[in-house]
Amino acid sequence: MNIPKSKLPRVVIIGGGFAGVNLAKSLANKAVQVVLLDKHNYHTFQPLLYQVSTAGLEPDSIAYPLRKIIKKHRNSFFRLAEVQHIDTQNKKVTTNIGDLTFDYLVIATGTKTNFFGNKAIEANSMAMKKVPQALNIRSLILQNFEKATIANSAEERRALLNFVIVGGGPTGVELAGAIAELKNHIVPRDYPDLDTTDMEIHLLEGNDRVLPPMSTHASKKAEQFLRKLGVQVHCNTFVKDYDGLAVTTNSDLKLESETLIWAAGVTGAPVEGINAEALIARGNRYKVNRFNQVEGYDSIFALGDIAFMETDAFPNGHPQVAQPAIQQGKLLGKNLLKLIQNKPMKPFVYYDKGSMATIGRNKAVVDLKHFKFAGFFAWFVWMFIHLMSLVGFRNRVIVFFNWSYNYINFDKAARLIIRPFKKG
Amino acid sequence: MNIPKSKLPRVVIIGGGFAGVNLAKSLANKAVQVVLLDKHNYHTFQPLLYQVSTAGLEPDSIAYPLRKIIKKHRNSFFRLAEVQHIDTQNKKVTTNIGDLTFDYLVIATGTKTNFFGNKAIEANSMAMKKVPQALNIRSLILQNFEKATIANSAEERRALLNFVIVGGGPTGVELAGAIAELKNHIVPRDYPDLDTTDMEIHLLEGNDRVLPPMSTHASKKAEQFLRKLGVQVHCNTFVKDYDGLAVTTNSDLKLESETLIWAAGVTGAPVEGINAEALIARGNRYKVNRFNQVEGYDSIFALGDIAFMETDAFPNGHPQVAQPAIQQGKLLGKNLLKLIQNKPMKPFVYYDKGSMATIGRNKAVVDLKHFKFAGFFAWFVWMFIHLMSLVGFRNRVIVFFNWSYNYINFDKAARLIIRPFKKG
Repeated sequence: MNIPKSKLPRVVIIGGGFAGVNLAKSLANKAVQVVLLDKHNYHTFQPLLYQVSTAGLEPDSIAYPLRKIIKKHRNSFFRLAEVQHIDTQNKKVTTNIGDLTFDYLVIATGTKTNFFGNKAIEANSMAMKKVPQALNIRSLILQNFEKATIANSAEERRALLNFVIVGGGPTGVELAGAIAELKNHIVPRDYPDLDTTDMEIHLLEGNDRVLPPMSTHASKKAEQFLRKLGVQVHCNTFVKDYDGLAVTTNSDLKLESETLIWAAGVTGAPVEGINAEALIARGNRYKVNRFNQVEGYDSIFALGDIAFMETDAFPNGHPQVAQPAIQQGKLLGKNLLKLIQNKPMKPFVYYDKGSMATIGRNKAVVDLKHFKFAGFFAWFVWMFIHLMSLVGFRNRVIVFFNWSYNYINFDKAARLIIRPFKKG
Repeated sequence: MNIPKSKLPRVVIIGGGFAGVNLAKSLANKAVQVVLLDKHNYHTFQPLLYQVSTAGLEPDSIAYPLRKIIKKHRNSFFRLAEVQHIDTQNKKVTTNIGDLTFDYLVIATGTKTNFFGNKAIEANSMAMKKVPQALNIRSLILQNFEKATIANSAEERRALLNFVIVGGGPTGVELAGAIAELKNHIVPRDYPDLDTTDMEIHLLEGNDRVLPPMSTHASKKAEQFLRKLGVQVHCNTFVKDYDGLAVTTNSDLKLESETLIWAAGVTGAPVEGINAEALIARGNRYKVNRFNQVEGYDSIFALGDIAFMETDAFPNGHPQVAQPAIQQGKLLGKNLLKLIQNKPMKPFVYYDKGSMATIGRNKAVVDLKHFKFAGFFAWFVWMFIHLMSLVGFRNRVIVFFNWSYNYINFDKAARLIIRPFKKG
């Protein structure tokens, strides 16, 4: 793969998500050679993808070129590559642009959308894990609005304006809230020919409450906020099938919708070649020890969403969100250097900073360890934390300006159908 | 097409470019019904497209939703539609979303890229008239950089890093300058594995000087600036053929390049159904009188790039740039209202505000009627004029911030390959 030879041990990182990027940063200019591989040339700040889907932000302000992240790391290389196979015996990865040997391998491939084997849903619904997918949703929503203005029948129009979101986790909740804001603020102004009462937003959640990983206080508040915005929340409800128009569920609820957004679950995106026993069934993750070493290997690691680390506090592994990935990435950087020097590594302990979700203008829920709150202040905290977590000064300023502008003007300004989305 | 009936005369505008948008604005809340049709749901600020191609700006900051432009016009409607045919007898347009009758029709469809009938060039080269095309160029440039880092041979690498721009008008000159800045500032920092001396930028112009519509002073300065940036300028040179790799020209010059960007000419994009005699050969434009009425019709108008208005001062029609389109659009708004009231219309007189082009950091050329200048001050004027010409406060602020950021940091920050471009 044309990486310069070096006397330093080579660390190959697969995936430039939160885990991979934080690991690469913590190995900057250290006594290792770092090769970062990713299918995309950018890091995606996934927590804000839903704002790209709903025309609040441009993709460029929540994504960041990976080369730019490592440009001051003289020991680091980036390659735009898709890893196809890991040869653990010969310590080699095979990619679409050639082979690469490694001394240490770190798998940080994250997760992909889980359709639980339902091919019809997979074919007809929209996922939202990547920037192009978010842009597809943006195009589809705006195309539906345009089509609704020229619809031939009331049924057709309602199906175009009916948005069904499956999965009441943070992604589903935030997306439902943002689509409701399009309904409340954008449609009345920009689509005077449309009747907003024709537009419905349905959020379906299999559990008995939205935001099941958060506190019941947060769930209750979030549901209140959603209902206030006009979102119809259906708990204990899961989708049985979707043919592109008719949504059938486990209950009496039947919906006709041109748009079903699937935010109901993720599953690990493992790479071929690692012992199958190291992969556990739950979420398709790699079993790792407290040092993130994949079971059965000394020099192969898994980080973040793709790692299953069983601890007393987290018998089912850590939550598949940004914080464990970031913290594991940072720690592994230090541990790798210790391992190379034959020093003892430090076991990972997750520091739970809390969790939060925003539901729209002035509305958010925040769970901290000893303090749970909701409303305007929570929304303010949500914004501040997300702004500060973005990579790069430029992105922070642009997101801040967009948020301020959208807030003052009740607007979502990035409303361009640049590449029309074709269903099916 | 589901447009509400009205007692007011209906003005149908085809095309939301500079001409169409300015006409729509000047008819805002006047005693006419306005229907604006466009294939895209946004207005494109074409003069800055080259900055999207070269990762300096996001598409969202130079495009603007058409619905947002007319949202306060209570008499105006937008439809996302492609006009297929004009029935002049029955005063009706046929579109992909249905038919629409008109009392007055305004054709403002602009131009499309002119490949002068060369199918091989059309198939293998990149055009840059629309946002998706500009994004394709951005992706291709960045993909070429990535591929060059893993190229198997020096020839392959050089072909990937060889950028050929055909056409030395403002678009070609500005694009060449911006690609040179990628070479000078981005490649050395972000692609440490690449040798910048392998990267070449060639600008080919058929005339004996670049920027042929401008003064010789501007041409001379622009060429100096380009050479200083490392662009190889070839005048009196036109491309004979391009198979996707080998560029052959009328001279000895032969180049091997994976990327040929075609900015060598445009031709009108007329709509079917108008009398062929009204279309003149030169540039495929509609012959119009001083009121922009298409020859042979009282209630059909053509504006901007697609209009050929012969005057003493402009025997070959007006330059196909933003200003004539804007001025004609504004005037026609007033003239239409006069026509409806049977008042005499005012003939169009072009007010030439001058022309300008930028070549890169601190470098631009400006031709005013009595004053021609180049360099830093010209560059400053160029920036100010373009910033103020953008539609919308938000876009102005974001472009201003991006320019400041890029200027201070010698950066082009929008370097994401969001949708990889596949050649052929």
